[in-house]
Amino acid sequence: MCTLNPAAVRVGGEILLLVRVGERVRDVEDDWVAYVVFDPDAGQTVVKKIRKDNPHLDTSDPRGYFLDGKMLLTSLSHLRIARSRDGQKFTFDPQPAIYPATPYEAFGCEDPRITLIDGRYYITYTAVSDRGVTVAMVGTDDFVSFERQGIIFPPYQKDVAIFPQKVRGMYVCRHRPYMSEFNLASIWTAYSPDLHCWGHHEITVAPKPDSWESDRVGCGAAPIRTEAGWLEIYHGKDENGRYALGAMLSDLEHPERVICRSSQPVFVPEADYEISGIYGNCVFSNGLIVDDDGTMTIYYGAADRICAAATTTVDEMIAAAQG
Amino acid sequence: MCTLNPAAVRVGGEILLLVRVGERVRDVEDDWVAYVVFDPDAGQTVVKKIRKDNPHLDTSDPRGYFLDGKMLLTSLSHLRIARSRDGQKFTFDPQPAIYPATPYEAFGCEDPRITLIDGRYYITYTAVSDRGVTVAMVGTDDFVSFERQGIIFPPYQKDVAIFPQKVRGMYVCRHRPYMSEFNLASIWTAYSPDLHCWGHHEITVAPKPDSWESDRVGCGAAPIRTEAGWLEIYHGKDENGRYALGAMLSDLEHPERVICRSSQPVFVPEADYEISGIYGNCVFSNGLIVDDDGTMTIYYGAADRICAAATTTVDEMIAAAQG
Repeated sequence: MCTLNPAAVRVGGEILLLVRVGERVRDVEDDWVAYVVFDPDAGQTVVKKIRKDNPHLDTSDPRGYFLDGKMLLTSLSHLRIARSRDGQKFTFDPQPAIYPATPYEAFGCEDPRITLIDGRYYITYTAVSDRGVTVAMVGTDDFVSFERQGIIFPPYQKDVAIFPQKVRGMYVCRHRPYMSEFNLASIWTAYSPDLHCWGHHEITVAPKPDSWESDRVGCGAAPIRTEAGWLEIYHGKDENGRYALGAMLSDLEHPERVICRSSQPVFVPEADYEISGIYGNCVFSNGLIVDDDGTMTIYYGAADRICAAATTTVDEMIAAAQG
Repeated sequence: MCTLNPAAVRVGGEILLLVRVGERVRDVEDDWVAYVVFDPDAGQTVVKKIRKDNPHLDTSDPRGYFLDGKMLLTSLSHLRIARSRDGQKFTFDPQPAIYPATPYEAFGCEDPRITLIDGRYYITYTAVSDRGVTVAMVGTDDFVSFERQGIIFPPYQKDVAIFPQKVRGMYVCRHRPYMSEFNLASIWTAYSPDLHCWGHHEITVAPKPDSWESDRVGCGAAPIRTEAGWLEIYHGKDENGRYALGAMLSDLEHPERVICRSSQPVFVPEADYEISGIYGNCVFSNGLIVDDDGTMTIYYGAADRICAAATTTVDEMIAAAQG
């Protein structure tokens, strides 16, 4: 159904994208809707069906059916590696890298981030189930074997990006608790002694009224250390539902303190494939590659349907954050 | 306006309740509604007013006004100590023990739990603000001076009860993430090396369909170690909005594993002051005192308005959990 929101990492001579692949049921009889979930008891993926004339069914959202007010995703996502020598032509691995395997992943594994720390790669991704929307972590040394580390944030959580090095003796991450009747969805910072247990939570970036990021914000790929501070490309959603990207800089020693963020987005949906898709008018990035010469490739999901890329430079993004 | 949901602890020869005290604006002109918040910039409590004929104002919920879909609490809560020799007649301290003091507490400090660990008392409570509903921790040795420890869980979180001793080398707690479009509000378990950073999250108790606890569950006071397992009095809400109390037992070495829980509630709203109040048909407990002879006093909030108490025994509650 869709390949979207890739994490990106350079491993040896290759660029790897860890792509969220959403699969749906292909052939459904006329009077039914169907969806697919991982059944933890059976240990496999199963197809579920609901009659279209069920009065408790709401099919108005392309991303999920609502049945009695509970959401059922139209697609089941897993994470799959696509490999490239040049960062432009990619070949998918024949098998998934991370496929739903626990009750916390019954509705899918989504939107990964990758951080290299001391020679080991840590992948964080959204684990969705009827237990809620949580964040799980997987470790790997080689992108061949993966070691599951369990749930590192309770629901409702998404968009966890771990920093590539310790700050003041502790690991650091951004995380993104969800909105509520009291607050809009904002970017938070947390610290950890061991990457498993997280605390010292502080809100870092909240939506700005009447702006491109008025409705919600969330972090992107792992922050990049620069002389100007930690550089990040993050996403903001406005009141019309448009997702765009912004740049921000935070203090190297206290990354919960934002130095500056771009008053205007650095990247907005413009191309046809960004305007139309599954969730239209949307660019969403959780993967960056920076070359030695400062070229930055932003890999992103377009309209929740495909993967795309855009290039810029670290210096340009620092200037944008300051502008 | 209300004194509710007390934590309870025996200190020296006294029983202390740490009571949530909700204060509202007393005299409001006819055409206005008023509410009170802590203003972190001013460093003090301020009164805010909204005209009743504001078309964006919804006053149908007694606990909060909705303005443009954002909730504003009708009362500002702080935590205050009430002292007793006999556990029945209490005298309030003249000053608050924990009063809103940070931006995370702008809308109040609510529903405390107290746990004694190695001679020090740890108080967890709900901190509410426009940043969300989070849980903060305070340490004290004497209930005279209090040391703030910051936010230990990101939003949307309530009902954090820390176990009185380490389990398999780590601190343990229950916590209660909120409901979402995917899940009902359930009790989770987490572990920590230091009481500040929490991880290894697992869901422990989810609502049971068509029962007294069909809509949501949340933990009560700190679990009590017994030979039958960790004993807890927790709350459940049903589809009619009634809050009742149940008993559960969990594994001493793996408290994320429930041994049994009461099929019927152990305590339900019956008295007038439990049926009618601010949020009626509600008993909610986060404070227990156990005597040497096994007598258990359950302190609880009744209808979100007053504090009450009920007595039982540890053995009776173990039997109820097994029933």
